[in-house]
Amino acid sequence: MDQISNPALLEQAERAKRASRVLFSSTAAVRNDALGYISESILNSKESILEANVKDLEAASAAKMPPTQMDRLRLDSKRIDSMALGVRDVQKLPEIVGNVQDGWVRPNGLRVKRVRVPLGLVGIIYENRPNVTSDAAALCLKSANATMLRGSSSAYHSNLAICDLIADSLEKAGLPRDAVSLVKDTRRESAIDFMRLEGFIDCLIPRGGKSLIRAIKENATVPYIVDGDGNCHIYVDQHADLKMASSIVVNAKCQRPGVCNAAESLIVHTKVAEQFLSMLRLDLVGVEVRGDERTLEYYPGSVLATEEDYATEFLDLILSVKVVDSIEEATAHIQRYGSGHSEAIVTSDISSANFFVANVDSAAVLVNASTRFVDGGEVGFGAEIGISTQKLHARGPMGLEALTTLRFVIEGEGQVR
Amino acid sequence: MDQISNPALLEQAERAKRASRVLFSSTAAVRNDALGYISESILNSKESILEANVKDLEAASAAKMPPTQMDRLRLDSKRIDSMALGVRDVQKLPEIVGNVQDGWVRPNGLRVKRVRVPLGLVGIIYENRPNVTSDAAALCLKSANATMLRGSSSAYHSNLAICDLIADSLEKAGLPRDAVSLVKDTRRESAIDFMRLEGFIDCLIPRGGKSLIRAIKENATVPYIVDGDGNCHIYVDQHADLKMASSIVVNAKCQRPGVCNAAESLIVHTKVAEQFLSMLRLDLVGVEVRGDERTLEYYPGSVLATEEDYATEFLDLILSVKVVDSIEEATAHIQRYGSGHSEAIVTSDISSANFFVANVDSAAVLVNASTRFVDGGEVGFGAEIGISTQKLHARGPMGLEALTTLRFVIEGEGQVR
Repeated sequence: MDQISNPALLEQAERAKRASRVLFSSTAAVRNDALGYISESILNSKESILEANVKDLEAASAAKMPPTQMDRLRLDSKRIDSMALGVRDVQKLPEIVGNVQDGWVRPNGLRVKRVRVPLGLVGIIYENRPNVTSDAAALCLKSANATMLRGSSSAYHSNLAICDLIADSLEKAGLPRDAVSLVKDTRRESAIDFMRLEGFIDCLIPRGGKSLIRAIKENATVPYIVDGDGNCHIYVDQHADLKMASSIVVNAKCQRPGVCNAAESLIVHTKVAEQFLSMLRLDLVGVEVRGDERTLEYYPGSVLATEEDYATEFLDLILSVKVVDSIEEATAHIQRYGSGHSEAIVTSDISSANFFVANVDSAAVLVNASTRFVDGGEVGFGAEIGISTQKLHARGPMGLEALTTLRFVIEGEGQVR
Repeated sequence: MDQISNPALLEQAERAKRASRVLFSSTAAVRNDALGYISESILNSKESILEANVKDLEAASAAKMPPTQMDRLRLDSKRIDSMALGVRDVQKLPEIVGNVQDGWVRPNGLRVKRVRVPLGLVGIIYENRPNVTSDAAALCLKSANATMLRGSSSAYHSNLAICDLIADSLEKAGLPRDAVSLVKDTRRESAIDFMRLEGFIDCLIPRGGKSLIRAIKENATVPYIVDGDGNCHIYVDQHADLKMASSIVVNAKCQRPGVCNAAESLIVHTKVAEQFLSMLRLDLVGVEVRGDERTLEYYPGSVLATEEDYATEFLDLILSVKVVDSIEEATAHIQRYGSGHSEAIVTSDISSANFFVANVDSAAVLVNASTRFVDGGEVGFGAEIGISTQKLHARGPMGLEALTTLRFVIEGEGQVR
């Protein structure tokens, strides 16, 4: 704290922390009221949100922002509808705060319970998608956390317009406006200060690329959850249903190549390699194949894969391929190159499936299903704040539960040691 | 990784990581065999452990180590017995690895399970108690984690003797010797390198003081769990049974003043302050009282408390005391000065108890019980690897569960998105 020379940020953090204490003892009814008001006010304020967004788009265009980034920044009526619907969906999720996870009685009569409580103040650092502002604020509010949002400078006006609506809605529900606040200083130095708000931010969740994660590991003094790379593998076993395998590989690679749960690497058992690779025909769906020498034999048009290729999360229509002699070689390859996100096996054989699950240490392992299901919505969490590739606190898709913690409540009749 | 210029440490980390993969797919039977051998061999090797300990003690004595530290470093036959028994107790704990926490079926037929798995490689940094070596190694092994232990240089020979016995026992059980290893380079710089073994250490657990925690926050790039201060409070409500309150305060302050769950601060409601403080007589048990002006009125011999006193974890027979006009003032005082460890209320009134629990955000809140129960053994975990004052991953006493993580196992019949 003493190392932060940013009085405005500190003052904002103090207000946010105070608000987090009000949320800590708030009821779900009040929080759900606020979520309803937020959803309504987003729908009713399309024009002012779009006006603010135009300011950001004009500045971005003047600064020659690349088209894909411009697209992320852009809001339109439909995207605003879906922001409002997203908040409404979060409102309707089952309550989680206050739930008793487990409890027991000690021999001395003490009653021990572990109760789910909010983290407190959650910090989010994100890039230029304005919808993250309402999505993240809604999930944090549902789980009784206050939020400090640090969006990118390029989305500043859009984020501010959305945050103002949220603050008004909080006030209308009787909650502090400061329970959701936007960091107004978007210089790079202030991001570092943000990561060092020790004693204020209880959990920092970055939603950005490698350089942001690096900056956090090097600078953060607050606890954080890393949303890391997904170098996801699919292993086609010698006992696989090859038609099923083909459908899973095409889906995992092509349905949305730019996301972390898309497949980046295919491993094929040598006994089925020729037959499977001949039927796969990824070229027909525009996928470039980079394979080892045996792949090249069976898959015309593929290029020789480098070490680097096997280690790369392409996020594009490119797939690295390796032919192996055994399932042990497959899991060893995954250990070496995988990022611990999601790995799938396609097999009809129980012992292959069991071996794979027992030897692949990833956040998610799948048997006969596409890696694309490793997602908060798809696993049934209703919403997602990110996908953790670290092992502490939360691993894999993070829903509301990842925004909470368990604390002990111990009741007695005067027991002493 | 590329920032570590310590080839021996890196090489050791690589071996430990490989061993962690063997443990990941090991059976509980084999791990329990190893724990049994460790316990036996500690008992059977008292002489060699004591010989090694004498070397450390002689060096410490020559270096004029303070007596309390010397006492922590010292082993004797009884302490070695209790190390061996500790390992045996861990062996007998219920298994946790592989347990299915929950599971459900998605509308598309996918079966989603969350399964408890080890963290992988756990790093422990600790000071000069040699018993931590076997305690920590046993808990990690029980939960199928590999361990890299970095003890203090002053306990080097003792730790090495114990680690050698552990390695032999691992080998005897058919597990890799590297599953538990001691860092041999005990220079300060190597501690920093140890905290930056990114990609190797999955969780770092420091067992030490403030300066160690500070060094970790500033330097660690691996995930860690902070075992922080315990500035624990007891609030005596206006509706308290004052005899019970007195017994709890004396126990929480005096039973073992040097530990983190000892009480450091007493808050008394004004309506019972005179009566309670007159009957408390902490001077009879050697406790120095530092109170506010109202305390001074009712408690002869107390000295005026400073702001600093209220913020201090004394770890000694000193207690700060404050008289308040309301329970709201009590919880506000705790918010301001507490460290989020453990706070207790003594009251006979349900609404006071509920208000306290709902407004105090600490790892543990207690109603009518001593803060000294916030301990892994006392809450029923059978053993403890530390007490977390952070909110992520583990909060409060940490048993075996804190050494594991939940991962997703998703099974289907070829589902795609």
